[in-house]
Amino acid sequence: MGEFDLITRYFKRPSQRAVLGVGDDCALLAPTSGMHMAISSDMLVEGRHFLSTVDPARLGHKALAVNLSDLAACGAEPTAFTLALSLPRIDEVWLEGFSTGLLQLANEHRCELVGGDTTQGPLNICITAFGEVPPGDALLRQNAQVGDDIYVSGTVGDARLALEVFRGTQAIDAKAFEAVRARMETPTPRIALGIALRAIANAAIDVSDGLLGDLGHILQRSQVGAQIDTTWLQHSNTFGEDAQAAGISLTLAHLPWNKRIEFALAGGDDYELCFTAPVHQREMVHAAAWESNTPVTRIGRITQTQGLVVTDPEGHPITRRFASFDHFA
Amino acid sequence: MGEFDLITRYFKRPSQRAVLGVGDDCALLAPTSGMHMAISSDMLVEGRHFLSTVDPARLGHKALAVNLSDLAACGAEPTAFTLALSLPRIDEVWLEGFSTGLLQLANEHRCELVGGDTTQGPLNICITAFGEVPPGDALLRQNAQVGDDIYVSGTVGDARLALEVFRGTQAIDAKAFEAVRARMETPTPRIALGIALRAIANAAIDVSDGLLGDLGHILQRSQVGAQIDTTWLQHSNTFGEDAQAAGISLTLAHLPWNKRIEFALAGGDDYELCFTAPVHQREMVHAAAWESNTPVTRIGRITQTQGLVVTDPEGHPITRRFASFDHFA
Repeated sequence: MGEFDLITRYFKRPSQRAVLGVGDDCALLAPTSGMHMAISSDMLVEGRHFLSTVDPARLGHKALAVNLSDLAACGAEPTAFTLALSLPRIDEVWLEGFSTGLLQLANEHRCELVGGDTTQGPLNICITAFGEVPPGDALLRQNAQVGDDIYVSGTVGDARLALEVFRGTQAIDAKAFEAVRARMETPTPRIALGIALRAIANAAIDVSDGLLGDLGHILQRSQVGAQIDTTWLQHSNTFGEDAQAAGISLTLAHLPWNKRIEFALAGGDDYELCFTAPVHQREMVHAAAWESNTPVTRIGRITQTQGLVVTDPEGHPITRRFASFDHFA
Repeated sequence: MGEFDLITRYFKRPSQRAVLGVGDDCALLAPTSGMHMAISSDMLVEGRHFLSTVDPARLGHKALAVNLSDLAACGAEPTAFTLALSLPRIDEVWLEGFSTGLLQLANEHRCELVGGDTTQGPLNICITAFGEVPPGDALLRQNAQVGDDIYVSGTVGDARLALEVFRGTQAIDAKAFEAVRARMETPTPRIALGIALRAIANAAIDVSDGLLGDLGHILQRSQVGAQIDTTWLQHSNTFGEDAQAAGISLTLAHLPWNKRIEFALAGGDDYELCFTAPVHQREMVHAAAWESNTPVTRIGRITQTQGLVVTDPEGHPITRRFASFDHFA
């Protein structure tokens, strides 16, 4: 099988939204008049972003999910994406799995694969995703206001726990491992929540490098500080029971306190949304969480004093440092 | 230097066209109302698309040029691009050169770097470029008509000659080598020609894998054949003397006939435009070439009989096979 057969077989589908899809020099989109186009690009490298043993269907899901998560953090609705793929060799079993996982998530969001590139080389997946958002409605990092509540969606820390099990530094039972492994390998982009938060949230970011580190980007861009109360890390909540109090996963709640706060606050690979909203919008945030069927937890407050203060459930500042993920650190 | 400092230092510039540029979860563009958006994505891998010894500024130029060439082949005007970069390590000299070459070409075309990703891994450059084209004006592979003239812009074969010198299979003098090496390392995307050909050309493609192979994509998509007369490969023409008869470069014209047709017809890495236009549009094609200051050469005719017939200057069919570039062949 050559390059062009590969594209036709695994990645070319009839165009639904695009004017012109896979197979020409360019793809052609007809943007909705008056809408802004949100664009996100992420590159995944074997050994750094995923393990070589990962199921290819899960990898296909994740490669798109991390981009959709960026669109979600802007409140954008996905429309299309391109895929550039460098492969060591043509492995049909791998391609079948990868494209299945990828296109399944794409179909769920009516986000169409419109073009890209394939080449031979070390395994590398680069997806660029497009979405639409009304002008002025995009959630940006720079708009957090003093006094805003700080929220996080879903649960954080599970992906990190799964990674530590793979690394051999943690041991958990098989069922719990499957649960956190699925969180690491098939994250859920919070598209519906992002859209529901338009005109409600002031600032948002997706949590990919660790909650505190990513919140730090909001603080830096908005020139504000924050206070985080870790009381919510004492409790676990099953999703759906109370959309305003997600807490952490049952699995994470079984870890010793120190591990728990390390993984939840600085774990990375969560692909949840961290966002801020005015206090008077609490009802609306609650409604957005219900509407999008996405649990959110209020975890702190934006402050005028710059810097990030994290307190334990007794109200004492936690002074240990949490490292954020940096690809070159 | 960490990942975020790297981005700020080498790739973040004040936004000119974008609503929101580098530094948030997504970039935001405001597409021109009523225009279609053309999208192209290319991935460049060390050792396959470029040599490890290439000057980083030239590599920065080329990485964007190959994408702009795709936009040119659609008749689109570039607006913005994203860059995803996997680097083995942070090498400031390399980054300085790469970003300079990249942003210089971007500025020439008012094509803005709006976002992307950086990570650690084997050297890999993935650019996704965006352009605008009026609905119905995009030049597609599928619209070639029986009787159309076939044209190619600039000169073809020089990049392949440079590659063969690097490989040690060809020897040419230093000055000639510098000329063909520049053609390989800093190709000129034919943006102005592509725009000038809107509503004149019927079909177009950019020549990246070899002239005959890329023309073959037009034939396949348009369900037609072609006859190519190689008489033009007997002559060299200095650019600008006659925009309708570019021929081949002086350097290539010095090669033996067999090498000349091999490199010109199947060389690859040319980033010229191959396009078809009705016979009654010859004057308009001429005008488009002058207007865009880009030489074009008429090289053949679209035929009803499927297949590609190449004739020598005496009119005899050339029966040898020309391999097109396939990354997995």
